[in-house]
Order: sequence, then structure tokens, then C-alpha cells
Amino acid sequence: MDNRFFSKPLAFENVTISDGFWKRNMELVRKEVIPYQWETLNDRVPDAAPSWCMRNFRTAAALQAEKKEKGEAFVPPKYVWRGFEALPEDPSNPEEGRFYGFLFQDSDFSKWIEAVGYSLSQHPDPELEKIADGAIDIVCAAQMDDGYLDTYYIINGMDAAWTNMRDNHELYCFGHLVEGAVAYYQATGKDKLLNAACRFADYVDAHFGREEGKRRGYPGHEVAEMALVRLYEVTGEEKYLKLAAYFVNERGQAPNYFEQEEAVRAQSEGRPARHANLYYYQAEKPVREQDEAHGHAVRAVYLYSGMADVARMLNDESLFNACKQLWHSIADEKLYITGGIGGTHIGESFSYPFDLPNDSAYSETCAAIGLVFFARRMLQISPDSRYADVMEQALYNTVLSGMALDGKSFFYVNPLSVNPVACKRDERLQHVKHVRQKWFGCACCPPNIARLTSSVAQYAYTENEDTLFTHLYTAGSVRKQFADGTLTMEMVSGIPWKGNAKAVIHADAPVKGTLAFRLPGWSDQPAVRCEGKQQTVKNGYAYLTGEWREGDAVELCMPMPVRIWNADERVRENIGQVAFTRGPVTFCAEQADNGENLHLLRVSDLDPAHVTVETDETFAHSTVRLIVNGKRVVPQAGGLYRAAAAPVMEDIRIVLVPYYAWANRGEGEMTVWLRN
Amino acid sequence: MDNRFFSKPLAFENVTISDGFWKRNMELVRKEVIPYQWETLNDRVPDAAPSWCMRNFRTAAALQAEKKEKGEAFVPPKYVWRGFEALPEDPSNPEEGRFYGFLFQDSDFSKWIEAVGYSLSQHPDPELEKIADGAIDIVCAAQMDDGYLDTYYIINGMDAAWTNMRDNHELYCFGHLVEGAVAYYQATGKDKLLNAACRFADYVDAHFGREEGKRRGYPGHEVAEMALVRLYEVTGEEKYLKLAAYFVNERGQAPNYFEQEEAVRAQSEGRPARHANLYYYQAEKPVREQDEAHGHAVRAVYLYSGMADVARMLNDESLFNACKQLWHSIADEKLYITGGIGGTHIGESFSYPFDLPNDSAYSETCAAIGLVFFARRMLQISPDSRYADVMEQALYNTVLSGMALDGKSFFYVNPLSVNPVACKRDERLQHVKHVRQKWFGCACCPPNIARLTSSVAQYAYTENEDTLFTHLYTAGSVRKQFADGTLTMEMVSGIPWKGNAKAVIHADAPVKGTLAFRLPGWSDQPAVRCEGKQQTVKNGYAYLTGEWREGDAVELCMPMPVRIWNADERVRENIGQVAFTRGPVTFCAEQADNGENLHLLRVSDLDPAHVTVETDETFAHSTVRLIVNGKRVVPQAGGLYRAAAAPVMEDIRIVLVPYYAWANRGEGEMTVWLRN
Repeated sequence: MDNRFFSKPLAFENVTISDGFWKRNMELVRKEVIPYQWETLNDRVPDAAPSWCMRNFRTAAALQAEKKEKGEAFVPPKYVWRGFEALPEDPSNPEEGRFYGFLFQDSDFSKWIEAVGYSLSQHPDPELEKIADGAIDIVCAAQMDDGYLDTYYIINGMDAAWTNMRDNHELYCFGHLVEGAVAYYQATGKDKLLNAACRFADYVDAHFGREEGKRRGYPGHEVAEMALVRLYEVTGEEKYLKLAAYFVNERGQAPNYFEQEEAVRAQSEGRPARHANLYYYQAEKPVREQDEAHGHAVRAVYLYSGMADVARMLNDESLFNACKQLWHSIADEKLYITGGIGGTHIGESFSYPFDLPNDSAYSETCAAIGLVFFARRMLQISPDSRYADVMEQALYNTVLSGMALDGKSFFYVNPLSVNPVACKRDERLQHVKHVRQKWFGCACCPPNIARLTSSVAQYAYTENEDTLFTHLYTAGSVRKQFADGTLTMEMVSGIPWKGNAKAVIHADAPVKGTLAFRLPGWSDQPAVRCEGKQQTVKNGYAYLTGEWREGDAVELCMPMPVRIWNADERVRENIGQVAFTRGPVTFCAEQADNGENLHLLRVSDLDPAHVTVETDETFAHSTVRLIVNGKRVVPQAGGLYRAAAAPVMEDIRIVLVPYYAWANRGEGEMTVWLRN
Repeated sequence: MDNRFFSKPLAFENVTISDGFWKRNMELVRKEVIPYQWETLNDRVPDAAPSWCMRNFRTAAALQAEKKEKGEAFVPPKYVWRGFEALPEDPSNPEEGRFYGFLFQDSDFSKWIEAVGYSLSQHPDPELEKIADGAIDIVCAAQMDDGYLDTYYIINGMDAAWTNMRDNHELYCFGHLVEGAVAYYQATGKDKLLNAACRFADYVDAHFGREEGKRRGYPGHEVAEMALVRLYEVTGEEKYLKLAAYFVNERGQAPNYFEQEEAVRAQSEGRPARHANLYYYQAEKPVREQDEAHGHAVRAVYLYSGMADVARMLNDESLFNACKQLWHSIADEKLYITGGIGGTHIGESFSYPFDLPNDSAYSETCAAIGLVFFARRMLQISPDSRYADVMEQALYNTVLSGMALDGKSFFYVNPLSVNPVACKRDERLQHVKHVRQKWFGCACCPPNIARLTSSVAQYAYTENEDTLFTHLYTAGSVRKQFADGTLTMEMVSGIPWKGNAKAVIHADAPVKGTLAFRLPGWSDQPAVRCEGKQQTVKNGYAYLTGEWREGDAVELCMPMPVRIWNADERVRENIGQVAFTRGPVTFCAEQADNGENLHLLRVSDLDPAHVTVETDETFAHSTVRLIVNGKRVVPQAGGLYRAAAAPVMEDIRIVLVPYYAWANRGEGEMTVWLRN
């Protein structure tokens, strides 16, 4: 590991995004998602499942108030197991003093406040900030004196706290609280929530670790690992980094903590211990020995992100090697061409290598988001364009597909092939929706899209002492402090529709330093033109070093041909089929353009030069569509089975639109892979 | 409906099967399956899940004995819900006096005794008969004074009997008891079990019906309908026919009995009523209005069989029309080319029209068996070779596939494509086994194969007053009484490997009558040669009428070309693929002959005349294999996704073997459909 290349995202105040493509998405999040989400957190959306989130915080806060008032006379609630999701018998009249919703519902607030933070950093909004401050007051009021803050146990009784770390998401809620608190602090400078998060982190640090008297547990659903590294970065408190490293290193050690914990629960409940699939939790063996991406895909990439963070912070090469192996497992064996991951809905998990079914894909939006997290952290250690290519692929396809073009509905699952009849009539596809949903009871994806979209700047650029890295060509303005001064880089770019970008430098005085630009894998012979700077290329990045002056310009010419793909033959699902990409965008055929029965289409011309690229004004914003020479099989009569013959086909033009834009024009079929 | 064509199977004593192909299977059942099954019924197979079946009968019999001994002082067991499957905490030491196993476990005995009956009729075996008589003694001793005989409720308490007809299988156990009793009586003339069955039937008749004071219920799992018609046929008691007709006609009437019953249960348990999918039970509407085959496939075809029986017995045209519509729904929209039915494992059900997935197929062995039942009953009403073609297709492919060639292991599920890696690593395919299993806890399929295989004569031939119908060319000897005398027809045939058959007539004196021979749909221009008889062809049957004399011969020449099939384009799964049949046999490619990665194979020549047909001595018996001109895609390097190009292919010869013989040569891939 060459830590001279290590880098980190820029401080919020040093990046402003002005990119048309991303600005539109960020504005959707700001205007649609964040306000809507606040309503759902408060159970005020009539036709959406209640979140119960803020209600739970209020209930927990009332308990803290009662405790303060009554002092030692206060009898805390006795623990009652309320199930994974507790719902009131009469939803219109929930009982006072009860916890409702999924037991990880606290995290809804945390993801929301994180998105609010990013949004405020790009677009100040005093009204929104006031609402956020009010929410923070409620959340902080729910915190216990010792720092503990998980409303499920505060309300249901603390006796059983930390008795089921495998399933009950306390450290997941903790991790998200930290992430949200850091983002809100970084955006606003307000530290009330950050202080609460630190108090909770101190509590966790005091209770977990290898030291005598501490629990040897670790998160069932990972996220605390990367959150703690962030908390360390913002506070400088080394104990947080150590705690993150402990969680990473303890995971999967023998004897297995989750199994020990289950044995204790089983004994206390007088039942035999139940077997759990430890792969689901990435806890089957120590993380350095894990060589295949396994189990719940979101948990997995959250863990790997935390591993990469710890590896970078501690310059831990063997941990980074484990990250590289797991990256290989994903990118070379388990990645959809849409940047999605998770082949099976059973356990929302990775399937076995090369098992990438299209119609029953899980490809959860949150998993693609987690892959973006993981990819940027790998880039932070090792600026290699292969990581950035996958990050961009996930971002422009599955992450964006998760949200409707009007920001009002969401996909949890992102299939690569959809037949609405099958979605309606086939229970095996119960997890696949062919129309985006307004909200989910288990609402992880919409707020996750909100926080990622609002923070795209954190993925586009990273820096270290002497280098500013451009990973994504997201137009905007970036300020970089070098040893001898500060420069501002104004980036404009045609991405994702045109393969050009231009960076213009502003500097009051000449500044020495290196600007590094990613050479995207989707481009043929990308060229970087800049006069008077030394240029070297390494691992898909062009490094321009020299003295930068006002008006210096870097021109990037990244030819963006249509590409037609075959999958590795081990992907049985895609044998004899092709998919189309152009730049970072994966395309798909929709019924709206091509009629129904997309399985009858065949691509008859594999020469990408024969594909027509057109501007398309069909959607809410201008996009590009591809016109492909193809054929359509003409169905023949003859019964369920008939004598085989060469198919009768007619010539057609197949229209392809960006995958992220699918299902914005009513119900219909969709497919990414087409027969050829 | 033209009841002059109605027919019924021949009495056992009038048919002897000598067919090499079927005799082998019947001998397997006699020598392997029936004895093995008796051991399992008595929980004496160390490495198979206990059945608990005979144990339950013994426990119930002990209760009856106790009752007799103690008279009025006897306190019957109080009802305790033991769940759908009750297992002892310590399997090596089950508690006395308890019911164990699935609540329909009684039916294991009934299917076994039915198979025993058929087997004895073809092959007398005093030793087996003695065992069977002993078993019957135990079963009859378990019967209550009022005729009720279901050990689940006898043991757990009668309070709740008939309170959950939807799920708790009492009438299913009743129906199978009747079927077993009739078969054993017909084979041996012994009526002890038949009398018990009649007493149970009288009980059911007294308790169910539209009359005042009776329950308006009907079976949750059908089979009693066709069983009661059989009981009527053997006893002449019209009330049994009326009861069968009642069950058929009441089904799905509003208000829905299953919903009413659930409302009562919910009320007594103080919970809200749960919604049930009435389609699963074919109870969503009256059977005459049902126009699509829905729900649990075995239940469905058992119901349709009962409907056809009642339609024939009562000459009920509208009921027959419903049967025809449901037949159309299956044969033209929901039938695998292996004669299997049931596209989805969810509810072991029919999927929607044209949804016939290959790797995740359910295609339960029992469902194919039920389709054979339904087909023969349709033939009994209307001798049309289309019914016989499907009956034969199910019989020679999915039914036979259900049992290993050595009779020692069984498939419950019969996929059309298998990749062992997927079966092991993909939980979505948990229902698919790539290796036959020794026995199942829910052991419906093995005894069902046993009873069907042993009674194949009942499907090969039917008769009415003036006609003997040959539906299947199963070699054997058939005695037919005509108005003016008796003739014996000796049939020899090369089916399923050669398209020839010959029937030689023996008669002491000339006999006037009609012999009808099916002209199989798989044959090109089949010809029937017989001198001096009038020949007419109707609905795929050749009718030969005249005076039959000793030595008369009918020669059937049924050319048996290889056929290569496309599926209707609405079967998305099979687009661009072909399957092979020859005669009644569907073929498949196995890894044992073609190496792994069968998805890389392509059929390059669609001319059936270019397929080589070879005798194959690879299996336990002589079969035929097909050699097809094909290509194999040569996998290319280039990563998970690489630039699309025309596939690199090498010429190969693809070897196909009978589908029923697959998975008899170790673990490996299999596929019925091949790309072309």
C-alpha cells in the first residue's frame, strides 16, 4: 500500500455541484424526497405505511423526562419482546407509551438528517434547518443518561438490550445516528446531535471490545464500522477508530459471538438453539479470510466499506488485500451490468458466482449504494479507474433507477427484465415490482437514495496533500488547498451523454500541485490535453503536475461509443444475449417503445457503429436513446408445441432508453438483455 | 354426450400384462417399492424419516379397545391441536398414545394397500397378502363405532373433527381409504376393508349434504369424489354416487364453506379470520364456472377426475363441458412437454398460462399421476386420442421419472433443466433435487407411483358393451365378453421403442363386436390392417367391427419418427429452443453424455430425418438414444462482460436419452430444451 496515494473526500464547503444532470436529482431530493420523508417520519402521509419513527423518539423522550422528574422512584419499563415489527391493533389509535414499527426504525431519522445535512451544504434552507433542529431536540431528549440511544429497548425495557446483536440492529441504528450526526455537523457546524452521537459512541466503546468485562460482540447489520471511522475523522478521537477496527477484526472469530449469544437466548427461553446462516451476516469466519462476497448484499458492502476505511486509516495491508479479494468476487463474478448486486431475494443476498438472474434479480437499491461506498473507499486507498468505473456504473444505473424521475416513488428491487403479467401472477416474483412504490414500511432505500444523491460531490472528488482527484465528471466548482496556495477548479462536462469535460483553473497566484483525472473504462482512447504540465498515466488516472495559473484549462476528450456486451458464458441466464451501454449508462428496451413480448426481439447487428444515437425528449429531462437494427420473431400458430422450424422474423428498429429511466411511462415490459 | 361411447376399465381378472417395459416397472414395485414402503409405514427404515402411519393406527385401535372394555366410563381424549406435522421431541423414544407425523398420514397405508391390491391381481403372493390382511386388521380395529376413521382426530380428540375441512385432510384420508379398499377387494375378493370403507362412507353421507342438519362441507384436498364413484361402481349403492355429485356441485358455492369455517375458527380462537387463497383449493367458484386450471395441481386434477366420473355416471353434459374447458386449460396452456403439470412450487401449483419454467418447475410426480387419472376418465366419456396422447405422455415421462430405474429412490419434483450447482447453492431451487431421494416425510409420490404402475392395465384398456378400446399399446392378454360370446386379445407391441403392435384374437366360436385402437398423435399416418372387418376412424381411434374368429389378427403400423418441437412463443422460457420426442418418449441431454455446461449446446440441424436413433444399453434396461447434430459454444475470455461477438462454436454430436431415465448415472446437469 502506497499511502502517498491515499485520499479523502473534500470538505463540504470546498465543493459546489452545478451539474445539470445531478443538480436535477439533488433538487428532486431537496424538494420532494426530504419533505415527503419528514411527513412519513411523522406518520402524516395518509396512503403510506406509518414509519412510527418520530413517535418512538417522542415516547422514549417522555420516559427520560419522567425519569428525571421522578428520580430514583422511577421504575423503567420491563422488557417485552415486541417482535421484529410491532404494529398497533388499531392503526388509527395506537397505544401511548408503546414502540411501533420495525425495531430499526430509529435509523429512518438518521438517514433523513444525513440527507438534510448534505442538502443544506449545497443549498442553504433556514426553514428546513429549523425543522431538522427541532427533530434533533426530540432525538437527543430520548437519549439515556449513560448515552444509550435506541428507542426499541428504551421503550420496551433495557433488560434485553444487547442480547441479540445478530438480529436486533442496535449497532445499526447507532451507526446511522453517527453518520447523520457527522453530516449535519459538517454542513451546519451545529454539534448537538454530534455530541449525542459521541456519547452513544463512548457508551458502545465502554461496553464492547476484547478487554476484560466487555462484550465481544459486533454489529449484526454493519454500518457502525464506517461510521466510527468518520466520527474519528471529524473528532480526532482515536478510540473511535480503535472501536471500528475492533468490530472489523472481531467479526467471525471463533467461538462465534452470534452463536454464543443464541445459545444464551435459547437457554433462557428453554428451547434448543437455532442454527443461523452465518454467511448471511458475513460472520462465518474472520473477515481477512473471507474470499467470496456472501450473504445479505447491503450488509456485505457496508462491512467491506468499513474494512477499507480501517485498512486505510491503519495502513493495514492484509485487510486491504481482503478488500481486494472481495472486490474481485463482486466485480468479476457477481455484478449486474446495471451496477446492481444481489442475485437472490432469499436473504436479499449475493447468489453464487455468475448466478445473475434477470427477472428475479434482487439488486437492491441500497446494495448498489453500498457498492458506491465501497468503491470510493477502495479509490481512497488506491486510485484505480476500475473502482471508479464500477462506482459510476452503480450510480448512473441502479441507484438512479431506485427513484422515479419525479422523485415521488421508489424501487427497492431493480430487476433487469420485467413482465408485468408475471409480477402480478407469479408469487415467486413477489419481491419484484414493475411500478415504483410511494414508500415502504421498511424504508431503507428512499432515504439512502436521498443521502447519496445529495452527497454526490463526496464521490466525484477526493484529495490528498498534493493531489486533487476527479473520479466522476460531475460539473461543479472545487476548491483545493495545496502547500503553496489554493486553486479553484471549475468543471464542466457532458457526462453522461457526451464524452467531453473541461476543467478551468482559477488561482490568485500560481499554485504547484497535481490534478488527477480518471480515464473512464467506457471510453476509447480518452485524451487529456493541457499545456505545460507533466502528464503521466497510472491505473487509469492521468496525473497532471505543474504550476497552475489562472485560466489554465484541462480538456478531456473521452470518446463515448455505444458498446454491445456479451456476458461470460458462466452467466447461464445471458447466454445468446447482448446488452448495450454508452458511457456510464446501461440501456434497456421498454414496452412503451417496442411493444409487448420483448422476448421476441432479436438484435441482428452486433456492430456498435450501426447503432443510432439520438437525443430523446420523451422523459422529464433530455436523455439519449439508441436505435438498434433488430428483428422480431413472429409468433406462429400450431398449439403449445409444434414442429420446430427456423423462426419467422420481421425487421424492426429496437429502441433502447437509459435503464435508470425505465418504468416512468406506465406499466410495461422491460429488458436489459436482448437475444441476438 | 354420446353415452354409447362411454366405457370403463376392465375387471382385474380380465387383463394380464406381459409387456416387457411395464412388467419391469411392475416387478420393481412388487419387489422393491411395496416391501420398502411397508417397512417405512412401520418406521423400520433407519435412514428414512419415520412415517408413524401404522403406529398411529395401532394407537387409535388401542383407544377403541379401551372404549369397548370400559364402556360408558371411558373418557375420550380431549382435543389438542398438534400442528400439521407432529413430531416427538425425542424421535428415538416417542410418547405412547400420541399421534405423530403429518395429519394425513393415514393415507400412506391406503395408497400402499391399493398398490398391494393391483400387484396381487397381476402376481399372486400369499406372503404379501398375509401382511396386508394383518395391516387391515389393525386399521379396522382403529375405526370408531359410528364408522369414523381418521387417527389424527381419534387420537387427539374428536371435539374438533370436521372443523377444518379446508386443511385437515379428513376427507382426503377417507377417499384414499375407499380407493385402497376397493382395489384390495377387487384383487382378492376380501371385503373386510371394503366394509370398513362403506361404514366410513355411510358416516360421511350421514353428515354431509344439502339436507337440513348436515354440514355443507366438501374436501379440502380432493380425491373422495372419484373414490366414491368407484365405491358406487363396486357396491351399486347409489348414495355413494350422490355423495360424490354433492361434493362436486357444492364446491365453491357461495357463501364459501371454507370461509365460513375459518370465521368460526377465528371467532372461537379470538382472532381475526385469515384470508385464504381459494384458488389453491379450486373453491373460488362453482366447478362448472371454473375455466382455468388453478391452484395445487394434484388437488386440481383429482377434482377434475371426480368431475369427469360424476359427469359420466349422471350423463351430465354441463359438467363434462367444464371438464373439457379445464382440460383445454391444461393441455393447451399449462402442460410441460414431459407430461408434467404445475409450474410453480409456491402452493405446488399451476402457474399462469404459458408460464412453464424449466429449472424451477414443480411438475410433481403425483400431479402427472393425477393427470393420467383425469385423462382416462375423459377417454371413458369420449374416446378421443388427444386425451390418450397426454395420458401416455405423462405416464412415459414424468410418472416414470419419479422413480429410479432400480426402484429405490424417487423424485417428488421433476424439473426440465437441472444444474446441480444451482440446486446446492440456490435456495430458490430448494424444492428441486438433482438426485432422487429414498423416501419423503410427506410420502405421497412413491406410493402413488406404485399404485399407478401396478394398475397400468386399467389405463391401457377400457370397454363398454360392444367395444373393447385399446388406449395404450401395453402388451398383454385381455378378455372381453361380448353379447354373443367371449374373446381374448393377445397384444404384442414394440412401444415405446418401436411403432408396431399386433393383436391376435382367440375365440372358441365367432364373436361379434368392435375392437377400437388408438392412433397415436406421435405417429405419421398410422395404419391398421385387419382382413374382413369394417374399419372406421373417429377422433383418433380406428374401430374394427365384425365377427371375430380364432386367429384373426390386427396389425398396427405406427411409424415413429423423431420429432423436434418449438414451444408456443408465449412460453418465454423456451424461446429459441427445441425439444425432442420419439413416440411417447420425451428426450433430454445429460451431462453424463454431453459434458457439463449444457447451456452451451446448440442444435444446428432441425431436420428430424438427420437425427440418428440408436439402441442404448447404458441403463438397467435397453433403451433408445438420439444423436443430434449440434454445436457447442466455446467460452471466451474477457471478463464478466466483454465486447459482443458472434459465438465461437465447435461441431459436436449431442446425445439425448429418455427423460424418465435421467439422474440414474450419478450427479450431473440435465436439460430437455436445447438452444438452436
